[in-house]
Amino acid sequence: MTDFDCSIPTKVFFGKNKIEKIPKEIKKYSSRILFVYGQGSIKRNGIYQKIVNLLTDSGIEYKELSGIKPNPRIVSVRQGVALCRVHSLDFILAVGGGSVIDCAKAVAAGVYYENDPWDFFTKKGDIYKALPIGTVLTLSATGSEMNGFAVISNEQTKEKLPAGSDILRPLFSVLDPTYTFSVSKEQTAAGVVDIYSHILEQYFSKEDDTYLQDRLSEGLMKTCIHYAPIVINEPDNYQARAQLMWASSLALNGILSYGKTGDWSTHYIEHSISAVTDLTHGIGLALLIPYWLEYVMDDKRLVKYVNYAENVFNIKEGSADKKARAAIDKTREFFSSLSMPSRLREVGVNENDLGAMADKTTRFGPVGAFLELDTNDVYQILKSAY
Amino acid sequence: MTDFDCSIPTKVFFGKNKIEKIPKEIKKYSSRILFVYGQGSIKRNGIYQKIVNLLTDSGIEYKELSGIKPNPRIVSVRQGVALCRVHSLDFILAVGGGSVIDCAKAVAAGVYYENDPWDFFTKKGDIYKALPIGTVLTLSATGSEMNGFAVISNEQTKEKLPAGSDILRPLFSVLDPTYTFSVSKEQTAAGVVDIYSHILEQYFSKEDDTYLQDRLSEGLMKTCIHYAPIVINEPDNYQARAQLMWASSLALNGILSYGKTGDWSTHYIEHSISAVTDLTHGIGLALLIPYWLEYVMDDKRLVKYVNYAENVFNIKEGSADKKARAAIDKTREFFSSLSMPSRLREVGVNENDLGAMADKTTRFGPVGAFLELDTNDVYQILKSAY
Repeated sequence: MTDFDCSIPTKVFFGKNKIEKIPKEIKKYSSRILFVYGQGSIKRNGIYQKIVNLLTDSGIEYKELSGIKPNPRIVSVRQGVALCRVHSLDFILAVGGGSVIDCAKAVAAGVYYENDPWDFFTKKGDIYKALPIGTVLTLSATGSEMNGFAVISNEQTKEKLPAGSDILRPLFSVLDPTYTFSVSKEQTAAGVVDIYSHILEQYFSKEDDTYLQDRLSEGLMKTCIHYAPIVINEPDNYQARAQLMWASSLALNGILSYGKTGDWSTHYIEHSISAVTDLTHGIGLALLIPYWLEYVMDDKRLVKYVNYAENVFNIKEGSADKKARAAIDKTREFFSSLSMPSRLREVGVNENDLGAMADKTTRFGPVGAFLELDTNDVYQILKSAY
Repeated sequence: MTDFDCSIPTKVFFGKNKIEKIPKEIKKYSSRILFVYGQGSIKRNGIYQKIVNLLTDSGIEYKELSGIKPNPRIVSVRQGVALCRVHSLDFILAVGGGSVIDCAKAVAAGVYYENDPWDFFTKKGDIYKALPIGTVLTLSATGSEMNGFAVISNEQTKEKLPAGSDILRPLFSVLDPTYTFSVSKEQTAAGVVDIYSHILEQYFSKEDDTYLQDRLSEGLMKTCIHYAPIVINEPDNYQARAQLMWASSLALNGILSYGKTGDWSTHYIEHSISAVTDLTHGIGLALLIPYWLEYVMDDKRLVKYVNYAENVFNIKEGSADKKARAAIDKTREFFSSLSMPSRLREVGVNENDLGAMADKTTRFGPVGAFLELDTNDVYQILKSAY
């Protein structure tokens, strides 16, 4: 277990109609806000109008930044920064999934930065101050609603890169499970994979004596496995949606990683793929994780696989090696039960691009902590997944 | 799963020498503080001098409130309130275990309350504002370092009562596992029972669909069981001390209870005992928990016991009833492996006092949520534990 500084200040308002708490929370900080949302689903399901009414009734003025796409683009961030500056907006309300929230975070930091906010992602500039943010979550997946990370894509450079700071943690997030009832089966499934991948990336760590953190992670992975088929088959099942929504926040708010070092290489590799193909993040992760698990497995790391096998999948028979392989198979089966593809060739990736993707993944150096991967390692994983 | 509002703002500085962060954190709020500690162990192990040096070097003035006892007394709280008022102190630094921190919390709220702070505990007065608090933890047990609860005893009325508010959550807590190396075997064991009891009180809840919360609780219970023998036999084992220290905070910072209703009847019963006998809290809990588990078990509640048996103790054979009873036996064994007594008669409780204890436990009405207990129920549990 390593040293750490823990700070999880985001207030969560969890439950039906908790959206009504928004005006009071916002007014602690502002009466002129940027209202960020995606491609219009919140207009169809009524959330947009509800928020507009709440803001108007409370005398909160707002400007809109809409049309944020999955894999949110740096051009939207630049637009948001300009809107905040021109209209003197000093609070950001993000309503949507992780893409919308990530975009809002980049805007929040960009407003205080004199150069292009893309610098945060290429490590040319530091996030040192940010506007306060509140969120209303409509998709259980990224955990962005309770953490300080943002991932932004640049269409020009074909890059998708992360940045983060504790000052980007939202001040509050409204988690109303009914807002996820209308999420499609496909997006729901990809969201579950995203949650699961966050847990797994933190679970497979190199430190000893992370018993507590590992047991918590196993509990959350089992939660994903338990509720995934329920939300797929019964999209209006409040309790199942609620359990997965809270799982998405807990999976990446720090609770699982304080005291250890996450791996995250699968995420870096996936970013290099979806920067080119605009693939849904969860689908890319489902594709890669089993191949990554196979590639990094060796005698030294086997004990983690055995824990994973025994405690998540209840695999108790056979040698350590057999248990580990059975657990990888079970992981594959779980993703495949969520209708995830299992080969990169199925999702429009060109085999000739794999080398460039490996180069891009390791542009800032090796990735991963459970096992450090260089460009060739990444290429091998991509090739096996092709 | 129920609705909830989550707020866990306490910053945690975890690791060796993290105490050095204190002056910078305090100076965000104050330069005149109340320094609260216990009966002198921090003078013997050097923490006191280290803090005095840190405060002095940073120009932070302090007044001391010392001698806080286990089962902290309302008289100490009143003393602290007076010190803050007379010397215009506006920040409280609590250095010790849960008793010292609880006392600091009551002082923090008492300063802003015009009447006697005992009112908070008898529900005659509300906590509405409090001085900011920082803590340095020296005993892994109560979780007070990351939550808003305080339990205070009144020697005159022979009462021990809880009060709480989110505004009493410490702003920061320093968790340096090396500070617990010198805790005696007995106090270490009682601390582990305290942690375990907090998890168990939240685990046994009546709501359905708390899969996520239950799996997290099981993970933390297993952590206690795994590391308890190690810290007893190797008091200087940093990793084991670290795991239990973090477990104590996570057990009661809200993560296990958001979305469900804790039971807490065993705590209420124990408070009625230790108000009279000054018994160590963890010992009282170890005594009561198995009898409570036996008393409230019935067909309706059996499924929770089966989960407990299977997931915490790996009991997979036999009927539901058999598994449940085996899990209660295992709980008893665990406490007994920590040298906990198993009968109230062994710890100086007078059989004639049981009725009065039951009355006091239910003075504000029935206790418990997994199963509501009236005065007679409590009396039956006390009698079976005698």
